[in-house]
Amino acid sequence: MIVGVDYYPEHWPEDRWERDAELMEEAGIGLVRLAEFAWSKMEPEEGSFNFDWLDRAMEVLYSRGIEVVLGTPTAAPPAWIIEEDRSILPVDENGDREGFGARRHYCPNHPRYREHTRRIVKAMGERFGGDPRLVGWQLDNEFSGRCYCDYCKEAFQDWLKEKYGSLEELNEEWGTIFWSQEYGEWEEIPLPTTRARAHNPGLHLDYYRFSSDSWVDYQDLQLEALRPTLGDERVTHNFMFAGFTGIDYSELGEELDFLSWDNYPLISGEPRTERAAAAHDLARGLGGTGFWVMEEQSGPSGWNVVSATPRPGQIKLWSYQALARGADGIVFFRWRTCRVGTEQYWHGVLDHHGEPGRRYDEVKEFAREMEEVGKEITPDRVPVEVALIKDYETGWAFEIQPNSTELDYEEEGLAHYHGFHRLNVPLDVITPGEDFSDYGALIAPNLYLVNEELRKRLERFVRGGGTLILSYRSGVKESRNNKVVNQLLPGELRQLVGAHVEEYTTLGGSPWGEGKAGEGPAIEFLPHPLGSMSGRARVWADRLKLDRARPLALYRSGPWEGEPAASINEYGAGTVIYLGSGLPRNMHRGLAYWLKERMELSGAAETPAGVEAVWRGEGDEAVLYLLNHNAEEVTLSLQEDLKELKSGERREEITLSPYGVALFRR
Amino acid sequence: MIVGVDYYPEHWPEDRWERDAELMEEAGIGLVRLAEFAWSKMEPEEGSFNFDWLDRAMEVLYSRGIEVVLGTPTAAPPAWIIEEDRSILPVDENGDREGFGARRHYCPNHPRYREHTRRIVKAMGERFGGDPRLVGWQLDNEFSGRCYCDYCKEAFQDWLKEKYGSLEELNEEWGTIFWSQEYGEWEEIPLPTTRARAHNPGLHLDYYRFSSDSWVDYQDLQLEALRPTLGDERVTHNFMFAGFTGIDYSELGEELDFLSWDNYPLISGEPRTERAAAAHDLARGLGGTGFWVMEEQSGPSGWNVVSATPRPGQIKLWSYQALARGADGIVFFRWRTCRVGTEQYWHGVLDHHGEPGRRYDEVKEFAREMEEVGKEITPDRVPVEVALIKDYETGWAFEIQPNSTELDYEEEGLAHYHGFHRLNVPLDVITPGEDFSDYGALIAPNLYLVNEELRKRLERFVRGGGTLILSYRSGVKESRNNKVVNQLLPGELRQLVGAHVEEYTTLGGSPWGEGKAGEGPAIEFLPHPLGSMSGRARVWADRLKLDRARPLALYRSGPWEGEPAASINEYGAGTVIYLGSGLPRNMHRGLAYWLKERMELSGAAETPAGVEAVWRGEGDEAVLYLLNHNAEEVTLSLQEDLKELKSGERREEITLSPYGVALFRR
Amino acid sequence: MIVGVDYYPEHWPEDRWERDAELMEEAGIGLVRLAEFAWSKMEPEEGSFNFDWLDRAMEVLYSRGIEVVLGTPTAAPPAWIIEEDRSILPVDENGDREGFGARRHYCPNHPRYREHTRRIVKAMGERFGGDPRLVGWQLDNEFSGRCYCDYCKEAFQDWLKEKYGSLEELNEEWGTIFWSQEYGEWEEIPLPTTRARAHNPGLHLDYYRFSSDSWVDYQDLQLEALRPTLGDERVTHNFMFAGFTGIDYSELGEELDFLSWDNYPLISGEPRTERAAAAHDLARGLGGTGFWVMEEQSGPSGWNVVSATPRPGQIKLWSYQALARGADGIVFFRWRTCRVGTEQYWHGVLDHHGEPGRRYDEVKEFAREMEEVGKEITPDRVPVEVALIKDYETGWAFEIQPNSTELDYEEEGLAHYHGFHRLNVPLDVITPGEDFSDYGALIAPNLYLVNEELRKRLERFVRGGGTLILSYRSGVKESRNNKVVNQLLPGELRQLVGAHVEEYTTLGGSPWGEGKAGEGPAIEFLPHPLGSMSGRARVWADRLKLDRARPLALYRSGPWEGEPAASINEYGAGTVIYLGSGLPRNMHRGLAYWLKERMELSGAAETPAGVEAVWRGEGDEAVLYLLNHNAEEVTLSLQEDLKELKSGERREEITLSPYGVALFRR
Repeated sequence: MIVGVDYYPEHWPEDRWERDAELMEEAGIGLVRLAEFAWSKMEPEEGSFNFDWLDRAMEVLYSRGIEVVLGTPTAAPPAWIIEEDRSILPVDENGDREGFGARRHYCPNHPRYREHTRRIVKAMGERFGGDPRLVGWQLDNEFSGRCYCDYCKEAFQDWLKEKYGSLEELNEEWGTIFWSQEYGEWEEIPLPTTRARAHNPGLHLDYYRFSSDSWVDYQDLQLEALRPTLGDERVTHNFMFAGFTGIDYSELGEELDFLSWDNYPLISGEPRTERAAAAHDLARGLGGTGFWVMEEQSGPSGWNVVSATPRPGQIKLWSYQALARGADGIVFFRWRTCRVGTEQYWHGVLDHHGEPGRRYDEVKEFAREMEEVGKEITPDRVPVEVALIKDYETGWAFEIQPNSTELDYEEEGLAHYHGFHRLNVPLDVITPGEDFSDYGALIAPNLYLVNEELRKRLERFVRGGGTLILSYRSGVKESRNNKVVNQLLPGELRQLVGAHVEEYTTLGGSPWGEGKAGEGPAIEFLPHPLGSMSGRARVWADRLKLDRARPLALYRSGPWEGEPAASINEYGAGTVIYLGSGLPRNMHRGLAYWLKERMELSGAAETPAGVEAVWRGEGDEAVLYLLNHNAEEVTLSLQEDLKELKSGERREEITLSPYGVALFRR
Repeated sequence: MIVGVDYYPEHWPEDRWERDAELMEEAGIGLVRLAEFAWSKMEPEEGSFNFDWLDRAMEVLYSRGIEVVLGTPTAAPPAWIIEEDRSILPVDENGDREGFGARRHYCPNHPRYREHTRRIVKAMGERFGGDPRLVGWQLDNEFSGRCYCDYCKEAFQDWLKEKYGSLEELNEEWGTIFWSQEYGEWEEIPLPTTRARAHNPGLHLDYYRFSSDSWVDYQDLQLEALRPTLGDERVTHNFMFAGFTGIDYSELGEELDFLSWDNYPLISGEPRTERAAAAHDLARGLGGTGFWVMEEQSGPSGWNVVSATPRPGQIKLWSYQALARGADGIVFFRWRTCRVGTEQYWHGVLDHHGEPGRRYDEVKEFAREMEEVGKEITPDRVPVEVALIKDYETGWAFEIQPNSTELDYEEEGLAHYHGFHRLNVPLDVITPGEDFSDYGALIAPNLYLVNEELRKRLERFVRGGGTLILSYRSGVKESRNNKVVNQLLPGELRQLVGAHVEEYTTLGGSPWGEGKAGEGPAIEFLPHPLGSMSGRARVWADRLKLDRARPLALYRSGPWEGEPAASINEYGAGTVIYLGSGLPRNMHRGLAYWLKERMELSGAAETPAGVEAVWRGEGDEAVLYLLNHNAEEVTLSLQEDLKELKSGERREEITLSPYGVALFRR
Repeated sequence: MIVGVDYYPEHWPEDRWERDAELMEEAGIGLVRLAEFAWSKMEPEEGSFNFDWLDRAMEVLYSRGIEVVLGTPTAAPPAWIIEEDRSILPVDENGDREGFGARRHYCPNHPRYREHTRRIVKAMGERFGGDPRLVGWQLDNEFSGRCYCDYCKEAFQDWLKEKYGSLEELNEEWGTIFWSQEYGEWEEIPLPTTRARAHNPGLHLDYYRFSSDSWVDYQDLQLEALRPTLGDERVTHNFMFAGFTGIDYSELGEELDFLSWDNYPLISGEPRTERAAAAHDLARGLGGTGFWVMEEQSGPSGWNVVSATPRPGQIKLWSYQALARGADGIVFFRWRTCRVGTEQYWHGVLDHHGEPGRRYDEVKEFAREMEEVGKEITPDRVPVEVALIKDYETGWAFEIQPNSTELDYEEEGLAHYHGFHRLNVPLDVITPGEDFSDYGALIAPNLYLVNEELRKRLERFVRGGGTLILSYRSGVKESRNNKVVNQLLPGELRQLVGAHVEEYTTLGGSPWGEGKAGEGPAIEFLPHPLGSMSGRARVWADRLKLDRARPLALYRSGPWEGEPAASINEYGAGTVIYLGSGLPRNMHRGLAYWLKERMELSGAAETPAGVEAVWRGEGDEAVLYLLNHNAEEVTLSLQEDLKELKSGERREEITLSPYGVALFRR
């Protein structure tokens, strides 16, 4: 178990380094991430490298047993690189070129910038590759953004040549006959900037794919430059889950040795326990257990305005939440709050003044606990029987065409997640390329883009006894070209579903519901198998016709009153549920409850609202995490005979302090 | 009576055309509009034309008795035209040039684009002009937009030379002495882009006039190119009423053979029965009965997000609403929902999969009914005694200077319309250039821009016995130059009104009312002639001083308590009412009721909310339409002895199903 | 006492001037401001001057005893200046160049424009300097805006060279090591446009300083050009307080002979009595009594939408409010509402038609009263013992980094102001450079930027017996470079405060409060000295640790329950209060009440809500203004034996009409 901090020795006078290392050692910090924004200090002018300061910093740290992850500094090219060629600066969706003054100010497809990248990465590798003080590398920092510059335009046109082979094929696949957009030359193909009101959906989705591919390719370039000098170090990149949806992380993660991500629960206001839990489950879904939180919030965060400070206990709570769900490393961002720069108020473990305070004490307490139980509480496996599918490409397609003003693909996934999370049934969040065979049930909300291969894999899964939950706007599009299928919906999935969509309506801003905007007719689960439970349809409504399926829910008002709103179908040895509309939260909980009963899913017992109960490990190794996200004390009775790790006592009941954590074994 | 669909054979494999034609024939479709976005297919490169596919499509359709309206494709210039000269792309109000990727991406004043236009229109005319399969032409598609490119700048400066003759005259008329904006050279005159915070009102209004004129001129160019080859076909353009206010349709319609417009009641959320009714009344006001709905909503509409789907019955209901108010043709948009392109989700009669469904059945039912009664229920005249004046130029002047944050000229017109519509008193919506002599009463809300000629025509109208209803912000400006008049308000109209405005205040965001923003002091109609009726002033308040007029309403709170809020004046044989503030809806109904009683206006009997009753035709020919826009069944008693067309029975009472329609004759 | 109007003879035919002068004379107007937008008329082409019309206008006015303030016309360069060199047009924060068509369309650092400026100002001075008809000059009009053009970039780089001497120093001070932004050449330093997401805070604040300096420098240029020809005229510039915060007015005012400002109470909707009062107190704080209101609202104001019209009495009320707080001149904007131009609806004393109405009568009444009592009611001093510090630089620093989404430096100042204003305790609003020795108490909200000199002056002030009120986010930054201090907060002020900030949290959008966004834990003043009084913390919360201070308020909920929320410290002979969070209004009133009691502050007796009571002058000269800002009549008993000026009677009770005013002497 790693407990570390993100550290920037270059921000502080060298005579302070010793004091920092001492305070770290006292706090039980065993790792630092270094150098990922220090390009101007490592290479003040082209080809003239200065790594000695970094070597000295590593030495000060290592002498106290602190190991290092080194970051490549390409997220922040220095002024001299930009001044030489300002076309390195990326162009935004409106066609405007960015200026110098923040970070991430480069186009990943720019040839000259790719030269700069190769040079600095190679030089770092040559100096530090295989260094015993090093345990890993982080490539760049939080890849993101879509560039719309002329280099990207040319690269996109080449990417299209590769994909479609001929303009005839491209015109046919995109359907450029619509509005006379047939292309006679590759050079005529525009980028989907906002300068035109709404683009061809095929072109638009392909650009988002190209843009994701560009980042994967740019990361590969760094990997290639680094590889020859690598020793035992493992390579990672720090993903961002919240709101960073532009890169297909299943592809970006492919060549990496381990996965890490940056967790700031307070950034968007209120901490959303479910959202953070789902992000950990996605990290695990992408790379298995053993991922790191490379940046864990340890103070008020933000640029020109800041979030609240974590309440006493929350820093530890969030760290335990990560461990419960599969993390093996927690690196707190950042060691000491910087006195200068854009992130002057992105607070760290220490405040600007550099002396220990309440948050330092909490981190220290966590590190001490990790020393005691860290290894014991992080067995290799998190036992999971259900997976929720998150498809990056489907997310992009909905970003381009939301269909309904109320449709938010991310939120719809979280609505499904909510039901299971509330019942403490563990889920993996996976991308559709993952192997389904480990799971008993798959939830695939709004599976908009489908191709033949995916259809076959889903059929195989269900035929073999799996349960599949699908919902409205599934099978709408041919994946390759973002074209609407030439069949009744759910298109390729109709056989599985055993029903089809006769017609549909959005509920966004519509007169279909008597309720508020986005709400629609009443729906009700049929008594069997879910008991009576009802609410209002959200977002969208399909009018279903059953081919072979039975009804699972009916419309109870509106023009389709009495007709099926959801269906259930036996297919092979398995079952397929199709939800014709967005469900209210209570019905999501009902659905999860039914699945849990029916499949006898494992997982922890139910807990009061705001308390998570998560098992990590199996058999004798299994550890139960109880995590209280409430501001109030909570007492709960344990439904099993469990031994609390801290006290060593067997307990029938436990009282968790506000934001408190307790750990148990059988 | 025409029942048609908008059809795009170029979007589908040629071997599907036969099936489409067959399904159309079965549904009773007798007309298609074709080709209005097919430029790249008709002219894949400059001067090389390919019309054979279109000829074949026409043949397939005509062989089943389906006639054609051909569209010129200039709304969507192909990529090769743009690549040759990107200055064809229009420049928006912010000074940014649009990109390729959607439609309407051209400047109507661009010389090279005008060449392209002439060539394609001429070629289409030479190939299809006089073709017996053709019944009409549509020029371009939904003209709209204001371009701010350098060609427009030069053309505007020329337009100004023409209008003002000299810079001395222009400087005087615009009052450029204000803020030292006197122009010494024509070339100095800027376009009113957003790059300056607020422009001279004279310049700004002239640019909007120039912009409207540019579209009229561009349409003329197409007409000229087409005319030499025209046979019996009639020429139209499809107007857009909802929100498309940039072109003076009374001028655009002048040279057209018949008028058509595109009706999408669900686009802005809830269908607004009154808004659609007023739009039909405007179409009739501009061109008389016999207009077409060239695009009638027949499914969920929208680009990246869609509207709700029409509820069962609404497609027919909206079609009957059009006929009741004077339409002779209904063309449903579109035949089949396109699988590709920006309008992938602008649904048609058929869904993407191309097989008949609920909406096809409804269209078919409508077409069958039309075959039976279409001719009988569409007599030539809609009897109307009252007109509501809508002045495009006044709309532009308010767009530039709304005066009050709450003033929306369109909505104020609809507020007046509401009173009459609710009482089933038919109105024509007309532009101020129309002949007033057919009407007994004129409603001219917010008649902001007035010139001597209009004043004289209004005086003649009233002197001859007409009733004129005016309201606040009337007579404020000299029409020619958008200058405020040098008189007490209502300026030129003061003699007519018999009162003047002593002072005024906006109620937008103001502290004048005790109610919510935009509301002001209480006002009350005096007992005679309207009975006691009161509410809160909206938008604006004039403090009136009566010259000869009598008070019609008083302020009942605020600093002007007890002073007149509205006046009534006898002038010649007629009457002039002046409303010093925006009225609440109940007072608009009161006003309409009073006018109806006083003038013994014809029209249908009153009906419950959401039910329209409209007579089309006179004497023996007259047909009564009852249209239920409610989601519930409505039963009403008829106040005349009428024969229902469907059953052939005489009835005292009728029950209308949800969204149901019934037709009657005396 | 001056009563004047802003007059534009160039907007009207010359044969109207006589009538205007006659109406002015009748109304008692003794002064006009002229010519400040008349450049194109005074210099129709370069170097060719025409001042004769202006001379004639002055003659018409002066012959009726009306004196003149002449404005330099540089706020509105004519088209011929711009056409010659469009790079004079300023560039906005997004990097877009402004267009011609409004006003203020120039960069103050543009060399060619500075030539134009020198020429026109010199020519006006040569023609009118020392003219007996003239009493003053106004330089330009309402300086404002920040330009981001290349001339500014170069000038900024030079300004930085001057400030920092070397790039090493600049890199160190700004901390450009953060994100690799170290500059190797001065030319690499960018402007802080929006084209980068968030800039280095040191660079950003320096640009705002540079921008303010640019205006001061540009005003100096005009002063230099004018000075050689000046006679007895006094020179001013018309400041804008509401929302115009980009220029440090304490520096802009330094070289001016007297201060004036433009007061439009209705522009932002509801008139805010406190806001206008504070603005007058700032005008007095910057320049002492004797300032003018150079533009006083006298009708509905606005460009394309207008404000409400002043209610009967308000024009006089606002004028008396100005006098009460130290003004010696009221100039109404504008004489007659212009029929043309962007400000067509910025109404004046007369409406467009030019004949006297209700507002003319009110102005006339005011002028008559001024003739009677003007001199008597405007003694030289307004007695004040408390000052509120407003620091322009701190305002800029918060503009760049608001810290909390809820922090509005202007509003926080007004929250403090509210407490004293409600109790009729007079305040000066001063900038930190002013002498503190005249005051017994200083209120310095959010004193974010501190340097050693300011610290020392505050220490001297308190040591000498003064009371100092500080609040959260004080002492956070080193003033020179916008760097966070390297100490516990409040940094340099810790000795004074006798306490430090252990940790803090924003309450903006946070989960810290049970109340609405921006609210936090309950706080309560300790019984002694303020009595029990409680509410919810707003904006921000500091957790205080007391070094030597005593607690003044405690948190009563949340994780810091029971810990100090505010402190009080004896220091030397004085007292320092530190407020760890934003207070609700009731607690601000409580604080002011306590200070008033404790310091036995003078000021008028308490009055009902909406009624101001203000003493102007001392001893025998003292005059009490009672100002009723309510729409209703108010009766109040006087707590002293006072003689009403109007009736000459001694009164125990007075009834003020709606918006009414009464004046008293002892």
